[in-house]
Amino acid sequence: MFGTGMVGTGLGSALAECGEEVMLGSRTADNPDSIEWAAGAGEGALSGTFADAAAFGELLFNATAGTGSLDALASVAEEDLAGKILIDVANPLDFSGGMPPLLFTGNDDSLGERIQRAHPDLRVVKALNTVTVDLMVDPGRLGDVHDLFICGDDDVAKREVERLLGEWFGWERFIDLGGITNARGTECYLALWIRLYQALGTPMFNMKVVRDDA
Amino acid sequence: MFGTGMVGTGLGSALAECGEEVMLGSRTADNPDSIEWAAGAGEGALSGTFADAAAFGELLFNATAGTGSLDALASVAEEDLAGKILIDVANPLDFSGGMPPLLFTGNDDSLGERIQRAHPDLRVVKALNTVTVDLMVDPGRLGDVHDLFICGDDDVAKREVERLLGEWFGWERFIDLGGITNARGTECYLALWIRLYQALGTPMFNMKVVRDDA
Repeated sequence: MFGTGMVGTGLGSALAECGEEVMLGSRTADNPDSIEWAAGAGEGALSGTFADAAAFGELLFNATAGTGSLDALASVAEEDLAGKILIDVANPLDFSGGMPPLLFTGNDDSLGERIQRAHPDLRVVKALNTVTVDLMVDPGRLGDVHDLFICGDDDVAKREVERLLGEWFGWERFIDLGGITNARGTECYLALWIRLYQALGTPMFNMKVVRDDA
Repeated sequence: MFGTGMVGTGLGSALAECGEEVMLGSRTADNPDSIEWAAGAGEGALSGTFADAAAFGELLFNATAGTGSLDALASVAEEDLAGKILIDVANPLDFSGGMPPLLFTGNDDSLGERIQRAHPDLRVVKALNTVTVDLMVDPGRLGDVHDLFICGDDDVAKREVERLLGEWFGWERFIDLGGITNARGTECYLALWIRLYQALGTPMFNMKVVRDDA
Protein backbone atom coordinates (compact mmCIF):
# COMPACT_ATOMS: atom_id res chain seq x y z
CA MET A 1 0.00 0.00 0.00
CA PHE A 2 1.62 3.22 -1.17
CA GLY A 3 0.30 6.07 0.96
CA THR A 4 -0.44 6.50 4.65
CA GLY A 5 -3.31 8.99 4.57
CA MET A 6 -7.01 8.33 5.16
CA VAL A 7 -7.29 6.19 2.04
CA GLY A 8 -4.13 4.15 2.62
CA THR A 9 -4.84 3.46 6.28
CA GLY A 10 -8.57 2.84 5.68
CA LEU A 11 -7.95 0.39 2.86
CA GLY A 12 -5.03 -1.16 4.74
CA SER A 13 -7.12 -1.77 7.85
CA ALA A 14 -9.97 -3.30 5.85
CA LEU A 15 -7.55 -5.60 4.02
CA ALA A 16 -5.93 -6.63 7.30
CA GLU A 17 -9.39 -7.46 8.67
CA CYS A 18 -9.87 -9.66 5.59
CA GLY A 19 -6.81 -11.61 6.70
CA GLU A 20 -4.32 -10.07 4.27
CA GLU A 21 -0.82 -9.06 5.30
CA VAL A 22 -0.44 -5.38 4.46
CA MET A 23 2.62 -3.17 4.44
CA LEU A 24 1.99 0.56 4.34
CA GLY A 25 4.76 2.35 2.48
CA SER A 26 5.75 5.98 2.63
CA ARG A 27 8.71 8.21 1.80
CA THR A 28 10.62 7.45 4.97
CA ALA A 29 10.77 4.38 7.19
CA ASP A 30 10.07 6.45 10.32
CA ASN A 31 6.71 7.89 9.19
CA PRO A 32 4.75 8.19 12.46
CA ASP A 33 1.33 7.72 10.79
CA SER A 34 2.39 4.47 9.24
CA ILE A 35 4.13 3.16 12.37
CA GLU A 36 1.09 4.00 14.48
CA TRP A 37 -1.20 2.32 11.98
CA ALA A 38 0.93 -0.86 11.92
CA ALA A 39 0.95 -1.01 15.72
CA GLY A 40 -2.85 -0.87 15.89
CA ALA A 41 -4.04 -2.83 12.87
CA GLY A 42 -3.21 -6.37 13.95
CA GLU A 43 -0.56 -8.96 13.29
CA GLY A 44 -0.31 -8.74 9.52
CA ALA A 45 0.07 -4.95 9.50
CA LEU A 46 3.53 -3.66 8.64
CA SER A 47 5.17 -0.35 7.90
CA GLY A 48 8.07 0.58 5.64
CA THR A 49 9.29 2.72 2.80
CA PHE A 50 7.68 2.75 -0.65
CA ALA A 51 10.53 0.45 -1.75
CA ASP A 52 9.89 -1.92 1.15
CA ALA A 53 6.18 -2.05 0.38
CA ALA A 54 6.80 -2.72 -3.32
CA ALA A 55 9.17 -5.57 -2.49
CA PHE A 56 6.71 -6.99 0.07
CA GLY A 57 3.47 -6.80 -1.88
CA GLU A 58 2.09 -9.38 -4.30
CA LEU A 59 -0.61 -6.86 -5.21
CA LEU A 60 -0.02 -3.11 -4.96
CA PHE A 61 -2.34 -0.20 -4.21
CA ASN A 62 -1.53 3.40 -5.06
CA ALA A 63 -3.24 5.48 -2.40
CA THR A 64 -0.82 8.40 -2.36
CA ALA A 65 -1.89 11.97 -3.03
CA GLY A 66 -1.97 12.26 -6.81
CA THR A 67 0.74 14.92 -6.74
CA GLY A 68 3.13 12.40 -5.16
CA SER A 69 2.25 9.20 -7.00
CA LEU A 70 4.92 9.23 -9.70
CA ASP A 71 7.67 10.12 -7.24
CA ALA A 72 6.58 7.34 -4.91
CA LEU A 73 6.70 4.77 -7.69
CA ALA A 74 10.00 6.14 -9.02
CA SER A 75 11.58 5.44 -5.63
CA VAL A 76 11.09 1.68 -5.81
CA ALA A 77 13.04 -1.00 -7.68
CA GLU A 78 11.51 -1.65 -11.10
CA GLU A 79 11.80 -5.43 -10.60
CA ASP A 80 9.47 -5.12 -7.60
CA LEU A 81 6.80 -3.68 -9.91
CA ALA A 82 7.22 -5.82 -13.02
CA GLY A 83 4.29 -8.14 -13.62
CA LYS A 84 2.39 -7.02 -10.51
CA ILE A 85 -1.07 -5.52 -10.46
CA LEU A 86 -1.32 -1.96 -9.12
CA ILE A 87 -4.80 -0.78 -8.18
CA ASP A 88 -4.57 2.96 -8.72
CA VAL A 89 -6.96 4.64 -6.30
CA ALA A 90 -5.38 8.10 -6.50
CA ASN A 91 -6.72 11.19 -8.23
CA PRO A 92 -4.72 14.00 -9.85
CA LEU A 93 -6.10 16.70 -7.59
CA ASP A 94 -4.31 19.98 -7.01
CA PHE A 95 -5.54 21.65 -3.83
CA SER A 96 -3.00 24.49 -4.01
CA GLY A 97 -5.68 26.95 -5.16
CA GLY A 98 -8.12 25.92 -2.41
CA MET A 99 -11.49 24.20 -2.80
CA PRO A 100 -12.65 22.87 -5.15
CA PRO A 101 -9.34 21.40 -6.39
CA LEU A 102 -8.33 21.30 -10.05
CA LEU A 103 -7.19 18.26 -12.03
CA PHE A 104 -3.51 18.81 -12.80
CA THR A 105 -3.57 16.36 -15.69
CA GLY A 106 -6.19 18.28 -17.69
CA ASN A 107 -8.50 16.08 -19.73
CA ASP A 108 -6.06 14.91 -22.41
CA ASP A 109 -4.04 12.84 -19.94
CA SER A 110 -4.62 11.10 -16.62
CA LEU A 111 -2.69 9.93 -13.60
CA GLY A 112 -3.49 6.32 -14.41
CA GLU A 113 -1.90 6.68 -17.86
CA ARG A 114 1.12 8.51 -16.50
CA ILE A 115 1.78 5.67 -14.07
CA GLN A 116 1.31 3.07 -16.80
CA ARG A 117 3.62 4.96 -19.18
CA ALA A 118 6.30 5.36 -16.51
CA HIS A 119 6.15 1.64 -15.60
CA PRO A 120 5.19 -0.35 -18.69
CA ASP A 121 5.59 -3.72 -16.93
CA LEU A 122 3.25 -2.78 -14.10
CA ARG A 123 -0.35 -3.88 -14.66
CA VAL A 124 -2.22 -0.69 -13.75
CA VAL A 125 -5.92 -1.03 -12.97
CA LYS A 126 -7.72 2.21 -12.22
CA ALA A 127 -10.47 1.51 -9.71
CA LEU A 128 -12.05 2.77 -6.48
CA ASN A 129 -10.96 6.37 -7.19
CA THR A 130 -14.60 7.44 -7.64
CA VAL A 131 -15.77 6.67 -4.08
CA THR A 132 -14.80 7.71 -0.58
CA VAL A 133 -12.71 5.23 1.41
CA ASP A 134 -15.56 4.12 3.69
CA LEU A 135 -17.47 3.01 0.58
CA MET A 136 -14.43 1.45 -1.08
CA VAL A 137 -14.35 -1.11 1.71
CA ASP A 138 -18.11 -1.37 2.37
CA PRO A 139 -20.21 -0.67 -0.73
CA GLY A 140 -23.24 -2.27 0.92
CA ARG A 141 -23.65 0.73 3.22
CA LEU A 142 -25.73 2.67 0.71
CA GLY A 143 -29.47 2.42 0.17
CA ASP A 144 -29.31 0.86 -3.30
CA VAL A 145 -26.86 -0.92 -5.57
CA HIS A 146 -24.31 1.29 -7.34
CA ASP A 147 -21.48 0.97 -9.84
CA LEU A 148 -17.71 0.91 -9.81
CA PHE A 149 -15.88 2.18 -12.89
CA ILE A 150 -12.76 0.27 -13.80
CA CYS A 151 -10.20 0.54 -16.60
CA GLY A 152 -6.77 -0.70 -17.58
CA ASP A 153 -4.90 -2.25 -20.47
CA ASP A 154 -4.67 -5.77 -18.99
CA ASP A 155 -7.97 -7.68 -19.09
CA VAL A 156 -6.75 -10.50 -16.87
CA ALA A 157 -5.65 -7.99 -14.25
CA LYS A 158 -9.05 -6.25 -14.37
CA ARG A 159 -10.95 -9.50 -13.86
CA GLU A 160 -8.65 -10.38 -10.94
CA VAL A 161 -9.24 -6.95 -9.34
CA GLU A 162 -13.01 -7.37 -9.75
CA ARG A 163 -12.84 -10.80 -8.12
CA LEU A 164 -10.77 -9.52 -5.20
CA LEU A 165 -12.91 -6.43 -4.62
CA GLY A 166 -15.93 -8.70 -4.56
CA GLU A 167 -14.33 -11.16 -2.17
CA TRP A 168 -12.85 -8.57 0.17
CA PHE A 169 -15.50 -5.87 0.23
CA GLY A 170 -18.60 -7.14 -1.56
CA TRP A 171 -18.37 -5.14 -4.78
CA GLU A 172 -20.73 -6.65 -7.36
CA ARG A 173 -21.35 -4.12 -10.12
CA PHE A 174 -18.41 -3.10 -12.31
CA ILE A 175 -18.41 -1.09 -15.52
CA ASP A 176 -15.25 -1.78 -17.52
CA LEU A 177 -14.50 1.31 -19.59
CA GLY A 178 -11.65 -0.30 -21.53
CA GLY A 179 -7.97 0.68 -21.63
CA ILE A 180 -6.11 2.86 -19.15
CA THR A 181 -6.65 6.08 -21.15
CA ASN A 182 -10.23 5.91 -19.93
CA ALA A 183 -8.89 6.96 -16.53
CA ARG A 184 -9.39 10.43 -18.07
CA GLY A 185 -13.11 9.81 -17.67
CA THR A 186 -13.13 8.53 -14.10
CA GLU A 187 -10.61 11.14 -12.94
CA CYS A 188 -12.44 14.06 -14.63
CA TYR A 189 -15.58 12.84 -12.88
CA LEU A 190 -13.92 14.02 -9.66
CA ALA A 191 -14.75 17.58 -10.73
CA LEU A 192 -18.42 16.60 -10.34
CA TRP A 193 -17.84 14.33 -7.33
CA ILE A 194 -16.23 17.13 -5.29
CA ARG A 195 -19.19 19.41 -6.00
CA LEU A 196 -21.71 16.72 -5.12
CA TYR A 197 -19.82 16.21 -1.87
CA GLN A 198 -20.19 19.92 -1.17
CA ALA A 199 -23.87 20.05 -2.23
CA LEU A 200 -24.93 16.88 -0.38
CA GLY A 201 -22.79 17.56 2.69
CA THR A 202 -21.49 13.98 2.76
CA PRO A 203 -19.03 11.87 0.77
CA MET A 204 -21.20 8.78 1.35
CA PHE A 205 -22.71 8.51 -2.11
CA ASN A 206 -22.03 6.80 -5.40
CA MET A 207 -23.52 6.54 -8.84
CA LYS A 208 -25.94 3.91 -10.02
CA VAL A 209 -25.93 3.99 -13.79
CA VAL A 210 -29.63 3.67 -14.62
CA ARG A 211 -30.42 2.23 -18.02
CA ASP A 212 -33.45 1.23 -20.06
CA ASP A 213 -33.40 -2.20 -18.54
CA ALA A 214 -31.91 -1.54 -15.11
CA MET B 1 -33.93 27.64 -29.19
CA PHE B 2 -30.39 28.33 -30.33
CA GLY B 3 -29.22 25.37 -32.41
CA THR B 4 -30.79 23.18 -35.03
CA GLY B 5 -29.02 19.88 -34.47
CA MET B 6 -30.35 16.74 -32.81
CA VAL B 7 -30.63 18.46 -29.45
CA GLY B 8 -32.25 21.66 -30.71
CA THR B 9 -34.79 19.90 -32.93
CA GLY B 10 -35.51 17.19 -30.35
CA LEU B 11 -36.08 19.65 -27.53
CA GLY B 12 -37.98 21.96 -29.88
CA SER B 13 -40.36 19.22 -31.00
CA ALA B 14 -41.02 18.10 -27.43
CA LEU B 15 -41.74 21.68 -26.36
CA ALA B 16 -44.06 22.16 -29.33
CA GLU B 17 -45.92 18.99 -28.31
CA CYS B 18 -46.31 20.54 -24.86
CA GLY B 19 -48.14 23.43 -26.54
CA GLU B 20 -45.27 25.92 -26.49
CA GLU B 21 -44.45 28.16 -29.44
CA VAL B 22 -40.85 27.49 -30.37
CA MET B 23 -38.55 29.33 -32.75
CA LEU B 24 -35.41 27.50 -33.78
CA GLY B 25 -32.57 29.93 -34.41
CA SER B 26 -29.42 29.44 -36.43
CA ARG B 27 -26.73 31.51 -38.12
CA THR B 28 -28.73 32.18 -41.26
CA ALA B 29 -32.46 32.54 -41.89
CA ASP B 30 -32.36 30.01 -44.75
CA ASN B 31 -31.00 27.07 -42.74
CA PRO B 32 -32.64 24.03 -44.37
CA ASP B 33 -32.63 21.92 -41.16
CA SER B 34 -34.47 24.56 -39.27
CA ILE B 35 -36.96 25.32 -42.07
CA GLU B 36 -37.71 21.62 -42.49
CA TRP B 37 -38.18 21.24 -38.75
CA ALA B 38 -40.58 24.20 -38.59
CA ALA B 39 -42.62 22.81 -41.47
CA GLY B 40 -43.09 19.48 -39.74
CA ALA B 41 -43.40 20.31 -36.05
CA GLY B 42 -46.84 21.86 -35.96
CA GLU B 43 -48.39 25.29 -35.79
CA GLY B 44 -46.24 26.85 -33.07
CA ALA B 45 -42.97 25.84 -34.71
CA LEU B 46 -40.98 28.66 -36.26
CA SER B 47 -37.56 29.17 -37.79
CA GLY B 48 -35.25 32.19 -37.88
CA THR B 49 -31.84 33.55 -37.09
CA PHE B 50 -30.28 33.47 -33.62
CA ALA B 51 -31.31 37.14 -33.33
CA ASP B 52 -34.90 36.34 -34.36
CA ALA B 53 -35.09 33.51 -31.84
CA ALA B 54 -33.72 35.69 -29.03
CA ALA B 55 -36.26 38.40 -29.79
CA PHE B 56 -39.07 35.84 -30.00
CA GLY B 57 -38.36 33.77 -26.90
CA GLU B 58 -39.52 34.41 -23.36
CA LEU B 59 -37.27 31.58 -22.25
CA LEU B 60 -34.11 30.65 -24.16
CA PHE B 61 -32.30 27.34 -24.67
CA ASN B 62 -28.70 27.06 -25.79
CA ALA B 63 -28.48 23.85 -27.79
CA THR B 64 -25.70 24.87 -30.14
CA ALA B 65 -22.45 22.94 -30.44
CA GLY B 66 -20.30 24.22 -27.58
CA THR B 67 -17.72 25.56 -30.01
CA GLY B 68 -20.36 27.88 -31.50
CA SER B 69 -22.27 28.97 -28.41
CA LEU B 70 -20.53 32.27 -27.67
CA ASP B 71 -20.66 33.37 -31.31
CA ALA B 72 -24.35 32.52 -31.51
CA LEU B 73 -25.13 34.60 -28.44
CA ALA B 74 -22.86 37.45 -29.60
CA SER B 75 -24.97 37.76 -32.76
CA VAL B 76 -28.14 38.74 -30.93
CA ALA B 77 -29.23 42.07 -29.46
CA GLU B 78 -28.26 42.29 -25.79
CA GLU B 79 -31.71 43.68 -24.89
CA ASP B 80 -33.25 40.45 -26.16
CA LEU B 81 -31.21 38.54 -23.57
CA ALA B 82 -31.41 40.86 -20.56
CA GLY B 83 -33.47 39.41 -17.72
CA LYS B 84 -34.32 36.21 -19.59
CA ILE B 85 -33.52 32.69 -18.45
CA LEU B 86 -31.20 30.72 -20.71
CA ILE B 87 -31.11 26.97 -20.14
CA ASP B 88 -27.61 26.03 -21.25
CA VAL B 89 -27.72 22.47 -22.55
CA ALA B 90 -24.45 22.67 -24.51
CA ASN B 91 -21.11 21.09 -23.68
CA PRO B 92 -17.63 22.41 -24.49
CA LEU B 93 -16.66 19.40 -26.58
CA ASP B 94 -13.92 19.56 -29.19
CA PHE B 95 -14.27 16.70 -31.67
CA SER B 96 -11.43 17.94 -33.90
CA GLY B 97 -9.10 15.22 -32.59
CA GLY B 98 -11.66 12.44 -33.07
CA MET B 99 -13.37 10.34 -30.43
CA PRO B 100 -13.48 10.71 -27.53
CA PRO B 101 -13.67 14.53 -27.67
CA LEU B 102 -11.78 16.84 -25.30
CA LEU B 103 -13.22 19.63 -23.19
CA PHE B 104 -11.89 22.86 -24.66
CA THR B 105 -12.55 24.79 -21.45
CA GLY B 106 -10.22 22.65 -19.32
CA ASN B 107 -11.36 22.23 -15.74
CA ASP B 108 -10.70 25.76 -14.46
CA ASP B 109 -13.45 27.27 -16.59
CA SER B 110 -16.69 26.14 -18.21
CA LEU B 111 -18.97 27.01 -21.08
CA GLY B 112 -21.74 27.95 -18.67
CA GLU B 113 -19.50 30.48 -16.94
CA ARG B 114 -18.21 31.88 -20.22
CA ILE B 115 -21.77 32.53 -21.36
CA GLN B 116 -22.69 34.11 -18.02
CA ARG B 117 -19.56 36.33 -18.06
CA ALA B 118 -20.23 37.43 -21.65
CA HIS B 119 -23.88 38.27 -20.86
CA PRO B 120 -24.15 39.35 -17.22
CA ASP B 121 -27.85 40.22 -17.49
CA LEU B 122 -28.79 36.81 -18.86
CA ARG B 123 -29.91 34.34 -16.18
CA VAL B 124 -27.90 31.27 -17.17
CA VAL B 125 -29.06 27.94 -15.77
CA LYS B 126 -26.89 24.95 -16.66
CA ALA B 127 -29.13 21.91 -16.95
CA LEU B 128 -29.88 18.87 -19.14
CA ASN B 129 -26.30 18.79 -20.51
CA THR B 130 -25.64 15.48 -18.72
CA VAL B 131 -28.25 13.40 -20.59
CA THR B 132 -28.99 12.52 -24.19
CA VAL B 133 -31.84 14.43 -25.85
CA ASP B 134 -34.31 11.51 -25.75
CA LEU B 135 -33.93 11.47 -21.96
CA MET B 136 -34.05 15.25 -21.62
CA VAL B 137 -37.62 15.16 -22.84
CA ASP B 138 -38.66 11.79 -21.36
CA PRO B 139 -36.78 10.93 -18.16
CA GLY B 140 -39.39 8.29 -17.28
CA ARG B 141 -38.03 6.00 -20.00
CA LEU B 142 -35.36 4.50 -17.76
CA GLY B 143 -35.80 1.59 -15.35
CA ASP B 144 -35.33 3.61 -12.14
CA VAL B 145 -35.41 7.20 -10.96
CA HIS B 146 -32.30 9.26 -11.70
CA ASP B 147 -30.94 12.74 -11.08
CA LEU B 148 -30.52 15.97 -12.98
CA PHE B 149 -27.65 18.26 -11.99
CA ILE B 150 -28.40 21.96 -12.15
CA CYS B 151 -26.44 25.11 -11.38
CA GLY B 152 -26.56 28.84 -11.90
CA ASP B 153 -26.18 32.11 -10.02
CA ASP B 154 -29.91 32.98 -9.94
CA ASP B 155 -31.90 30.89 -7.45
CA VAL B 156 -35.28 32.09 -8.72
CA ALA B 157 -34.31 31.12 -12.26
CA LYS B 158 -33.20 27.65 -11.12
CA ARG B 159 -36.49 27.00 -9.32
CA GLU B 160 -38.41 28.15 -12.40
CA VAL B 161 -36.38 25.82 -14.64
CA GLU B 162 -37.01 22.92 -12.27
CA ARG B 163 -40.74 23.66 -12.30
CA LEU B 164 -40.85 23.85 -16.10
CA LEU B 165 -38.77 20.69 -16.65
CA GLY B 166 -41.14 18.92 -14.29
CA GLU B 167 -44.24 20.25 -16.02
CA TRP B 168 -43.03 19.66 -19.56
CA PHE B 169 -41.09 16.43 -19.29
CA GLY B 170 -41.68 14.93 -15.85
CA TRP B 171 -38.31 15.65 -14.25
CA GLU B 172 -38.60 15.17 -10.50
CA ARG B 173 -35.14 14.79 -8.99
CA PHE B 174 -32.76 17.75 -9.16
CA ILE B 175 -29.43 18.28 -7.43
CA ASP B 176 -28.61 21.98 -7.23
CA LEU B 177 -24.83 22.31 -7.18
CA GLY B 178 -24.85 26.06 -6.52
CA GLY B 179 -23.49 28.89 -8.67
CA ILE B 180 -22.65 28.74 -12.35
CA THR B 181 -18.95 27.91 -11.76
CA ASN B 182 -20.18 24.44 -10.83
CA ALA B 183 -20.82 23.91 -14.53
CA ARG B 184 -17.15 22.85 -14.42
CA GLY B 185 -18.36 19.75 -12.62
CA THR B 186 -21.26 18.82 -14.87
CA GLU B 187 -19.29 19.59 -18.04
CA CYS B 188 -16.18 17.64 -16.92
CA TYR B 189 -18.51 14.73 -16.23
CA LEU B 190 -18.92 14.48 -20.01
CA ALA B 191 -15.44 12.93 -20.12
CA LEU B 192 -16.95 10.01 -18.20
CA TRP B 193 -20.33 10.16 -19.95
CA ILE B 194 -18.76 9.76 -23.41
CA ARG B 195 -16.84 6.69 -22.23
CA LEU B 196 -19.90 5.16 -20.62
CA TYR B 197 -21.75 5.72 -23.90
CA GLN B 198 -18.98 3.80 -25.68
CA ALA B 199 -18.81 1.03 -23.06
CA LEU B 200 -22.59 0.56 -22.73
CA GLY B 201 -23.29 0.96 -26.44
CA THR B 202 -26.20 3.32 -25.80
CA PRO B 203 -26.67 6.92 -24.69
CA MET B 204 -29.88 5.96 -22.86
CA PHE B 205 -28.55 6.08 -19.32
CA ASN B 206 -28.28 8.51 -16.47
CA MET B 207 -26.95 8.65 -12.94
CA LYS B 208 -28.91 7.98 -9.81
CA VAL B 209 -26.93 9.39 -6.92
CA VAL B 210 -27.28 6.67 -4.30
CA ARG B 211 -26.89 7.80 -0.71
CA ASP B 212 -27.10 6.35 2.77
CA ASP B 213 -30.80 7.01 2.89
CA ALA B 214 -31.77 6.77 -0.80
